[in-house]
Parts: sequence; C-alpha cells; structure tokens
Amino acid sequence: MNGAESLVHTLLNCGVDTCFANPGTSEMHFVAALDQIPGIRCVLGLEENIVTGMADGYYRIARKPACTLLHCGPGFANGMANLHNAHRARVGIVNIVGDQATYHRPFDAPLTADTEGMARTVSHWVRTSARSADVGRDAASAVQAAMTAPGQIATLILPADASWESGGIVHAALPPPKPADVDHLAVETAARVLRSGSRVLLLLADPATQLPSQRLARRLAQATGAALLANFSIGHIARGRGSVPLERVPYVTDAAIEVLRPFRHIILVNAKAPVGFFAYPGKPSLHCAPDAEIHVLTRPEQDPVPALQALVDELGAPPAELPDPGPRPDIPRGNVTPEGLATALAAIMPEQAIVTNESISFGRNLYKSTHAAPAHDWLELAGGAIGDGIPVATGAAIAARGARRVISLQADGSALYSPQSLWTQARERLPCTTIILNNRKYRILIDEFRNVGVAAAPGPTASGMLDLSGPAIDWVRLANSLGVEAERAASLERCAELMRHSFERPEPFLIELQTQ
Amino acid sequence: MNGAESLVHTLLNCGVDTCFANPGTSEMHFVAALDQIPGIRCVLGLEENIVTGMADGYYRIARKPACTLLHCGPGFANGMANLHNAHRARVGIVNIVGDQATYHRPFDAPLTADTEGMARTVSHWVRTSARSADVGRDAASAVQAAMTAPGQIATLILPADASWESGGIVHAALPPPKPADVDHLAVETAARVLRSGSRVLLLLADPATQLPSQRLARRLAQATGAALLANFSIGHIARGRGSVPLERVPYVTDAAIEVLRPFRHIILVNAKAPVGFFAYPGKPSLHCAPDAEIHVLTRPEQDPVPALQALVDELGAPPAELPDPGPRPDIPRGNVTPEGLATALAAIMPEQAIVTNESISFGRNLYKSTHAAPAHDWLELAGGAIGDGIPVATGAAIAARGARRVISLQADGSALYSPQSLWTQARERLPCTTIILNNRKYRILIDEFRNVGVAAAPGPTASGMLDLSGPAIDWVRLANSLGVEAERAASLERCAELMRHSFERPEPFLIELQTQ
Repeated sequence: MNGAESLVHTLLNCGVDTCFANPGTSEMHFVAALDQIPGIRCVLGLEENIVTGMADGYYRIARKPACTLLHCGPGFANGMANLHNAHRARVGIVNIVGDQATYHRPFDAPLTADTEGMARTVSHWVRTSARSADVGRDAASAVQAAMTAPGQIATLILPADASWESGGIVHAALPPPKPADVDHLAVETAARVLRSGSRVLLLLADPATQLPSQRLARRLAQATGAALLANFSIGHIARGRGSVPLERVPYVTDAAIEVLRPFRHIILVNAKAPVGFFAYPGKPSLHCAPDAEIHVLTRPEQDPVPALQALVDELGAPPAELPDPGPRPDIPRGNVTPEGLATALAAIMPEQAIVTNESISFGRNLYKSTHAAPAHDWLELAGGAIGDGIPVATGAAIAARGARRVISLQADGSALYSPQSLWTQARERLPCTTIILNNRKYRILIDEFRNVGVAAAPGPTASGMLDLSGPAIDWVRLANSLGVEAERAASLERCAELMRHSFERPEPFLIELQTQ
Repeated sequence: MNGAESLVHTLLNCGVDTCFANPGTSEMHFVAALDQIPGIRCVLGLEENIVTGMADGYYRIARKPACTLLHCGPGFANGMANLHNAHRARVGIVNIVGDQATYHRPFDAPLTADTEGMARTVSHWVRTSARSADVGRDAASAVQAAMTAPGQIATLILPADASWESGGIVHAALPPPKPADVDHLAVETAARVLRSGSRVLLLLADPATQLPSQRLARRLAQATGAALLANFSIGHIARGRGSVPLERVPYVTDAAIEVLRPFRHIILVNAKAPVGFFAYPGKPSLHCAPDAEIHVLTRPEQDPVPALQALVDELGAPPAELPDPGPRPDIPRGNVTPEGLATALAAIMPEQAIVTNESISFGRNLYKSTHAAPAHDWLELAGGAIGDGIPVATGAAIAARGARRVISLQADGSALYSPQSLWTQARERLPCTTIILNNRKYRILIDEFRNVGVAAAPGPTASGMLDLSGPAIDWVRLANSLGVEAERAASLERCAELMRHSFERPEPFLIELQTQ
C-alpha cells in the first residue's frame, strides 16, 4: 500500500466522504487512490478558491469536514482567501496539498514554493508528511484537528514521494478533544449581571446562532429583559419560523454605535466584542459604549448550550414563546429594493432552504423581512474576503445531497471573484438559484470613499477603479457559457416569477436582477 | 500631506506611472490620492490574481515596474499565484497592500490576517510602514528593490492610518544597486571548457534570452561548436526574424534527458541547472548526464552581456550570421495541430507582436515553427502556476500602449483560472487576440496520470477530476459576457481568417479553437 492509498483509507475511517478537488501533477497518486478505493465523492472546482469555498459551505450544512485536494504552493495560495473566510466562520476543513518530492525540493524547480509558510497564515494545524509510513497517522491527526471545536482549518502537505512510496499504514479515527466544561464562575457573573437591572446585551456568534442556543438565549432575554443580538460577522444562523428573530450588530460604524449605546453590560456567547470591520479616522474601534463591561460566558471553542442551560437554571428562566412572525407575505411588485427582495423571498422560499448572503451593500436590510419565511439556514460571508457566496452555496448543496434548495444573494462585484463555481453547479446538477444583485459598481467602496472623508464623490481616476459598467457584464450569457440557465429581471414580480420557476426544477438557475 | 499622497508623489519620482488595482476599504486614501494627483494610469482588474498577472506582463515589456494596489490579507492572497509566476520570470513589481489601521489590528476584526506572513512567501522585499512619515521613504525603497536585477517582488504594506494621517514626506528615487561585475574566473573557466573539444551546452535564461545576449551566445556557438538552449521555464524570449532560433530544454523528463545526454559541460548564463519540473518515480531530478560538469558564467542577478562579451573577446569569436529562417510560410489548411497553428501564426503574425504562451500540453511543439515570423516577444508561464496567460497579455498590451498586437495561446483549463481578465481588455480597448485551445480536459494531467505509473487510463472518479466536457464551456459566450467579441474555429484556415480579422481591429477578440 502506498502513502496515498493509506490516506484514502484513513480519511474513510475518519468519516470523510467528500473531496473538493483541483488536482495537479504532484497529487496524481492521490487522484489514483481515490479512483481505486470507493467511498469518497469527488467534486471538481475550476480554481482553488472555489474548491476551498465549497468545502466551507459543505461543513456549514453537514457539520463535519470534507477534504480538499489542492496543488502545491501557488495552487494552495489560490484557495487561501476562502480558507480565511472558513476560519472566520469557524468551519472545519482538511486540506490535502501535494508538494514536490522531498528529494526534488532542493533543486528549486519552478513550482517549488513555501507551501508550509503559506498554509500557516490561514490554518490552525499544518503538517508535512515526511514519508509514506506517516501519512495515515498524519491524516487522522488532520481530521481530528479539523473537528476540534468550533471547527478548524487543518492542512496536510504531502510531498509526492510520500504519496507514491510503499509502506503506507492505515490509521483509525482519532477522537476530537472534548470542549472545555462550563465555566461556573462565568455563569455566576452573567447571572449577577442579568439580575442587576442594568441594560444587558447577550451577543451571540457561531455556533450559538443555531436553534438550541437561540431558544435558551430567548428564555434569558424574556426572563430578564436583556437584549439579544448576533455579531455582524457570523458564518451560519438558523432563521425563519421556529427560530428567534435574531438581528446582527450593524456593519456601519455610526449605526453600530447607536444600537450598542444603551448597554452597560455585554455578555459574549461564543461572540467577539463588537469591533468595527475597519477603523475610520476619528471613530472608535470598539462600538459598545466606552463604559460598557464585557463578560465572556463562552469562548468560541466552548459549547454554548450547557452554559446557557446553566444560566437558565440559575435564573429560573421559564420557557419562552417565540414571537409570531405573522403570515407569509404576498409577493411584492414594482421596483427592486432590498426590503422588496426580502419580502419576495419570505413569500416563496421553500421549506428548509439554505441562503448564502454575499449581497454586501445591497443586502444590509435583507435580514429583517424574512422572519415569516419557513425555517431555513442563512450563511454569511464571515471573513470579509469577497468571492465565497457561490462556492459556499455549491458546497452546501453537495452537503444537502440535492434535497434542499440553495439560494445565493450575490453582489455582482463579489460574484466576479468566483463565477466559475456556476460550472460545478451545472456539472453536479445542484438545486442552486443564484440571484445576482447587479448594480454594476463596487457600491460599498463608493460609500467608503465618502466615509474616509476625502471627497464627496470620486473623480475620474477613482471612478475607474470603482465602476463596473464599462463594459456592463452580461450575467445571463456568463451563466449560459458555464452551463447554467439564466434570465434577467428588472422588477420584483419578474424576479419572484423566475425564483418560482427555478425552485420547481432540480438544476441550477441564475437570475440577473438589475439594482441600483 | 497625508501618507497616501506622499506615496503617489514618491512613486512618480521613481518613474512608476502605471497602477494595476483592485481596491478595498483599507486602500481608500490611496485611491483618493491617485484621484487627486495626476500622472499614474490606473487599470482595474476584477480579482487580484488578474491585477498581479497584469503587473507581470507590464514589466516584461516595459522593463520597469508598475505598482499594484491590493486589498489587505486575503486580497493579497488572491494575487499570490501570479506573484509566484512573476518571481520565477524575474520580474519587478511594487505591491502596495492596504491593511488594518495599526491601532485597530489588536481587535482582530474579520478581515485581519497575517498580511506580512503571506507577503513573505512570494516577495523578495517586505515592509510595513508604521506611520505616515515613513511611507515616502519606504515606497522609494520598494521601487529600488523591485528594480534590483534581475527584477524583484517588493511588497509595501500600508496600515490605513499610515495612509490617512498627515506628516507624509515625499522621497526622491533611490538608485538600484549596480549588478555584480563580470567574474573573470568564470569567464576563464568557460573559455577553457569551450576550447576543450568536449561537447558543451550554453544554457540561457532571463535576461540572457534577449537579443544582445542571444547574438553573443550565437558567436560563441559558431566559433566553438557549442550548442545553445534555454531553460524550459523562462519568462521572456526575443524570437522571429533577427533573433537566434533558440530552443528550450523539453518539459518531458525522458525527452530532456535525451536532449542533454551528449553534453559533458553545461555553462549556465543566468540559467538554472536543467531540473525536472516535477520528480517522477525512478527518474532523476537533474536531467543532464550524471557526469556532466555544470559551470556558472553568470548568476540570475548578473548582467549577461558584459560576461558574454568578455568570453567572445577571450575566444576571439568572429561575428556570426543568423540562419535564414526561410520565407514566411503559407497559411495552412485542415485539422488543427500544434505545428499547423504555429505555421499559421508565422504566416500572419504582425511585426513586433507579443505572444503569451500558456498552451500547456498542446503548445510544446508550437515553438519550432515560428522562426520565420517577424520579430516578436514571446512570454512564457515561468512559474508553472496556471492562470497567468491572459492577465500577462493584458498587462503587456498596457505596457505597449496599444501599439503592438498581443496574441495569447491559451489552454482552456488554465484560461478558466482568470477569464475575468478579458473584461479589462474590453474596458481598456486593448489589441489582444486570445486563442483558446479548447480540448475540454486537463490533458497534461491525463498524461501525468499515465506518467506516475499507476494505471494506463483514469477510471470514472479520476476522469471526473480531469475532464472539462460536462458541461462544455462556451468560450464565445463567456467572452461576449465580458465585453469581448469572439468566434469559434475548427480548422486552421478558419482560425487564420479570424486571426487576420482580429489583427486589423484595435479591440480585443477571442477565438475558441477546437482541439484534441
């Protein structure tokens, strides 16, 4: 058995059954082992950032890691931006990266690069298998690392000779470390604060944005009068009927400061302190009131459910009703607005849909109008590196095995980072509906140009770097060229009609929605 | 004056007049300074690997660095693969990368990343400007580093507050260090070897692949019977009439070993020893004969011309005629073959064309049939990270200021890494002709699958990772969607007709050429 074969058998032992791939020569023995040993579904992406983005979306739905198959050095580098996003979304991924054979590396062949150095910048765990006998054990360690709460990026680098030499040893799965126990001092502090009569905010982030934690947090809020919010940057939130109508701290600094101003205490439940996405001249980094006290109930790597349950018990918080989101709205008509699009979604979204949201400036108000939709999972761009929306949707659809509709709310500028993902949707016949919010500009940057206080409006040189209208991109043809059917819409009723059409069909579809 | 303004004035002082850009919020003061201070042409790329690839192509033609404007962390990461290629092509680039404000970094906002760590993996020079007063001096140092022979990747990281704070100081240009003098011992050794009567190979790489070095090397070859070759991986070679018909060492290991077997001595002229692109089981890393002696006439960072001139003088090598490449061929007809396409190119390529070659497996025999073409520059994928062909072509066309036709010979699998480059060609109305060699597969990997000795042909799982035919990509629509006219060709005469049509028009054009 060679190293690559021991790798595939070990991955199967560890429960890894999906591989997102863009191979090169140094990975060819791994490709051959995947060919010969059944059990791992291989999904090709046309560029590495699509591969890593798919693995991210897969984890967010499957709640277990897939592996990626990436080419050495610059191939891995192409996938780093979406690994950054996955890291921020607290996702587990096992990257398998080929590399030059150990004895060939000193010759500095053209594709020789500092693969380990690259990997360290976006991974929690990095290891290079020096010989075939180590590959199985290292692969089991990599999966263990990826499954370590709340989910980690593990990168295993395989020199070609470690793959092709015989002497591979299959390894059993290694159990991930048990998360830290409930910190009773933290529970007591939180209980004291919640009883104090001060204005208190419970701030949630992954995985406390899922249903069990939401419901416990809602009991605490109802019993004590505390407010509930999520961090702006989260990876995954359960939404729609049956969930708590949880809003996020706003992105825009002044709006965030305004929302957070009343709170004297902020209790972090797997959340981070409310920090600006960027700094702006003369504005604070931390958006809560300067005299607010920040308390940690659970760190990101802890399980929020037992800690919230302990707090519920400590306070004797009774079961809470969920607010009635009211009936599903009617399909709206007329000009395209964020609220209108959200209402259309709430009106016709199927049960158990998955929404990926990379709508950037257009989408900041999408959130509030979808509470009356059926239960769904909402996946956000957690790391701010644009280009993960369509890949994440693609991976999420693979995880759902075709049984759930995936809807991408996708800004045009960001979509242009990874349009090749549409091809994988067509190849795998995935039930993905992509709605391109096509305003033909980087609108967020035009806003930011004003925010940084230099000038009210960009001049010709700056406009040339912020505008996408010359030439306008034809998203219908772009989707068609990659095998995906598409239509254009300029009104809410037409968009809704196309969504409905798409939701009835098993294959991917793209709607180019003209927006401002 | 703020830091960003001092940056723009300093870049202008240093002769940098072109900026390839994809900005984000942390770069907005740099965008504003470029808007207010005239003199730098800004060219937008839709993703960072396009931006860095354009800067690479620009340098190969302009022989001076452009700057890039890249977003922090993952934005830079997106551009790393083409920086790797530029590094291997010995190109100079000044990357300006924004980053979180210094005081905001400890808060670990979502887009915070190890920008310096990423930069180090693909840069010769990395610096973070800590305050606005340092930006001008650091920018002058960055340009100096980029201009250090043979061309270097310099990355200057600008925290947002170093850009926006006042106190910027404009700096004068710093002269690049003078290259090392001719090593007379190396010249004597080379002269002794060339006089010895043994079989000698002069092996060339950038910048010795340009005309002055080619002609001196030809004199040495003619006077002594030595052979001339270039490394397989080079960035830029002067070709066509008036140049030496210089072939490259083959890519395929067995062919390289066969070609190199006769030589007892190899004299490296800025070249690297002939090493395999990858290692293969049971085959050597070094492709020359095991008992061949390798001598260094000039290292990559030395000027090859005075060393070759000293060698010519030492040997009294008389001026040499260039071989007559014969008349320009007629336009070939019939099925598409590499030799046929090369003949068509030789038949109709305009004077002073620029060819970018990322034709991968299809293109290995393109080289030999283009000697009878007019003088042209030929740009190769030097680092092996696919996806630089169309971006390099785009940057080369910017450097040539519209005065030269740029022709991309482009494999389909590689083109799918950076098709967004076509949009910049349309936006800037560049005279670029892209020929997609569309075989609807990663053919090189199907060959490599056989080379690694696992099985004669891939099974269904491996085929799924090596095949691009399901669905077939419609390159005509893809180009159209990005604003570029396109047509399909399945014969050499139709391809030639479309090339001719394209060469007569100032704007970009794409030919989807059906190949096997």
